[in-house]
Amino acid sequence: MEKEKSKNKQEVLKVAAHSSPNSVAGAIAGTIKEKGEAELQAIGAGAINQTIKAIAISRGYVAPSGMNLICVPAFIDIEIDGEKRTAMKFIVGPRKK
Amino acid sequence: MEKEKSKNKQEVLKVAAHSSPNSVAGAIAGTIKEKGEAELQAIGAGAINQTIKAIAISRGYVAPSGMNLICVPAFIDIEIDGEKRTAMKFIVGPRKK
Repeated sequence: MEKEKSKNKQEVLKVAAHSSPNSVAGAIAGTIKEKGEAELQAIGAGAINQTIKAIAISRGYVAPSGMNLICVPAFIDIEIDGEKRTAMKFIVGPRKK
Repeated sequence: MEKEKSKNKQEVLKVAAHSSPNSVAGAIAGTIKEKGEAELQAIGAGAINQTIKAIAISRGYVAPSGMNLICVPAFIDIEIDGEKRTAMKFIVGPRKK
């Protein structure tokens, strides 16, 4: 997992197939407490799988403080080594009441 | 993809690694129009990958009617051929305003 500032200066949590869902979940909870929401990015089925597990786990981390986390998945085009690839991004934040 | 009535009589859309994200997206949009929300179930990285793509696509199907779809991922324990496995379920519905 890597943290990176995106264009709008929000940190993007990059999740890989070998990322630990628990660690990513901790990073999600921390980012949400600090900024209100978290943005994650994953390429490939393995990375997306870990991202989803992490989001489910992070719901448990923030639920005691009365937060009901939801996520919005979306496609994004990214460039890796000059090659265009489609990745998934996930915006995670509290459900508005 | 299979449809199945769960205990609470809500239809569960079962997504497999070979499911077409476009077809699943259509089923999500249809179920949401009919019932207000959709429940999906996926086992394994390949199936979860297709589920996430389908949710992102379904957002585009319902957005013109003013709906902003969100999803809540969660772990569920299921039994297949007498063996216990952990699957992911996804509740998909409109963001409450």
